[in-house]
Amino acid sequence: MCSVKKLINDPHDVVAESVEGFGWAHSDIIAVSFDPDFVSRAGGAVTGKVGVVSGGGSGHEPLHAGFVGVGMLDAAVPGAVFTSPTPDQIAPAIAAADGGAGVLVIVKNYTGDVLNFETAVELAEADDIETSTVIVNDDVAVQDSLYTAGRRGVAGTVMVEKIAGAAAERGDSLAEVTAVAERVIANVRSMGVALAACTVPHAGQPSFDLTDDEIEIGIGIHGEPGRQRIPLAPADTITEMLLTPVADDLALVAGENVLLFVNGMGGTPASELYIVYRQARKLLDARGVNVTRSLVGNYVTSLEMQGASVTVMRLDPELIALWDAPVNTAAMHW
Amino acid sequence: MCSVKKLINDPHDVVAESVEGFGWAHSDIIAVSFDPDFVSRAGGAVTGKVGVVSGGGSGHEPLHAGFVGVGMLDAAVPGAVFTSPTPDQIAPAIAAADGGAGVLVIVKNYTGDVLNFETAVELAEADDIETSTVIVNDDVAVQDSLYTAGRRGVAGTVMVEKIAGAAAERGDSLAEVTAVAERVIANVRSMGVALAACTVPHAGQPSFDLTDDEIEIGIGIHGEPGRQRIPLAPADTITEMLLTPVADDLALVAGENVLLFVNGMGGTPASELYIVYRQARKLLDARGVNVTRSLVGNYVTSLEMQGASVTVMRLDPELIALWDAPVNTAAMHW
Repeated sequence: MCSVKKLINDPHDVVAESVEGFGWAHSDIIAVSFDPDFVSRAGGAVTGKVGVVSGGGSGHEPLHAGFVGVGMLDAAVPGAVFTSPTPDQIAPAIAAADGGAGVLVIVKNYTGDVLNFETAVELAEADDIETSTVIVNDDVAVQDSLYTAGRRGVAGTVMVEKIAGAAAERGDSLAEVTAVAERVIANVRSMGVALAACTVPHAGQPSFDLTDDEIEIGIGIHGEPGRQRIPLAPADTITEMLLTPVADDLALVAGENVLLFVNGMGGTPASELYIVYRQARKLLDARGVNVTRSLVGNYVTSLEMQGASVTVMRLDPELIALWDAPVNTAAMHW
Repeated sequence: MCSVKKLINDPHDVVAESVEGFGWAHSDIIAVSFDPDFVSRAGGAVTGKVGVVSGGGSGHEPLHAGFVGVGMLDAAVPGAVFTSPTPDQIAPAIAAADGGAGVLVIVKNYTGDVLNFETAVELAEADDIETSTVIVNDDVAVQDSLYTAGRRGVAGTVMVEKIAGAAAERGDSLAEVTAVAERVIANVRSMGVALAACTVPHAGQPSFDLTDDEIEIGIGIHGEPGRQRIPLAPADTITEMLLTPVADDLALVAGENVLLFVNGMGGTPASELYIVYRQARKLLDARGVNVTRSLVGNYVTSLEMQGASVTVMRLDPELIALWDAPVNTAAMHW
């Protein structure tokens, strides 16, 4: 069991204080609104550009607020830790992102998020804001889960947000931005592993128990059950248990180009993520699949959970161009 | 006590496998040399440019290899975990970084590093490579420590590497690059806290013990003892215990401009780092000190240690320009 000590004040102030600090640290890129709480691009909506909005429970930082800025999201809505934001938070964020060309709303597939974003979209449309919604469901570990009908949305959300954001930035219409987001969703798959649980601040106890020699394959980003618990195994074995279902589900064939993303859950050192990357890369090489883009680091975390996920996205020339397009956010910039 | 489970294969292969994965993931930016092991800028040394080299024990990733690339380091030398690299690794890295204008060697103040880099510099100079060496000693927590005579070198190393790298990139001479690195060292101070220990892979046990309600103020980046152990306290209280000695040691006065850097030790969520940033910023505001540049994230880690450090650097217009200059490395790019 991992330490439950945290660098926080009152557990109920964690999100507000963290977002306030985030706002002060990155005031050149984003602006923070309180009551209702959301984060939006500095300078406000861009007239004539499609807005791109996402959000979800806090505790997955830098997702989503860390991806607000030029070339990615126009607004992000943080809920309480591991809890969906409310419609009366989401609707104003959609309004703040609207530059008159409509707003794409990107939702990870959790029942609470899906329902709350749906209500928010109705509120926004009642205010004459054109919207479309895409649901990210990249996690191949389980069909249906503790908080989800269908597959869960996890680390592949970063690819959806980056590429939809780039399409919006270059001037695509709402229909075009939506179509490219759907193309990413159709071509991105993920699966994760946990070595040790995380602790939700106001709960004060780990979200689940793993013994000292046990790991959970297919873990969800809120600690939801995955496929199986197994004894701790070498990283290469674990990586194969993640990469194989991902590559199989994508039906990757030799000669295809992919992006390989090894995501840290928050409490795993970078050195271990690169050991996972190394083996995932070897396995893709063995299939004749070309890894032409890579991302390694903590992008979709579960507080301080120890573990990692492997995401593969099938690429085509347009997706590569949109992935490579300039981005300037707190957590991703090139 | 934190989980000692790790995403690794053989503990003795951790550094080699991790660096190999790192090399594959970032082949557009860096090249990896094995036997002797070091990481250097893709494309090799730049003719006529001063080379900038650093290194040290592994386990602090992304320091140092994550900072190799245009505008920062020309080469980095990873030792075993928490162990200095050897002179016969360092000397070839210095040679690889030499474009004919000399090489600045940046060393964190740990006795093992200081001695091994000194020997390596002698080897390089015997090969007619002009060098100069700076020793980073930004940690105000303790004078002398488990592995150090004088103050330890910690997170402020990132500022030294970024700014010296930018000076080299704009064409400064070795004497000029050395002088600006020394100016950073004279104006940067840090102090850290640990909430839970980390585990060195081949040791298999946490490096030190903290009880469930105990934290260590002034912790070193290898878990060396700090100033005191105290019961867990609110983040605002802990932050004040870190920021006050740092600001006092710098003798900051109202009206000065600073960079504020909140560094994660590896196992602490981003949300908590921003809570620390928020309070550090408030305390600097109360002193009338202007935070004009900020950095928040895991840059100088201690494997999966839970904790953070606060670094403040006094700025002047030249240091700001060099900080803002373009950089393209695996872990820092703008």
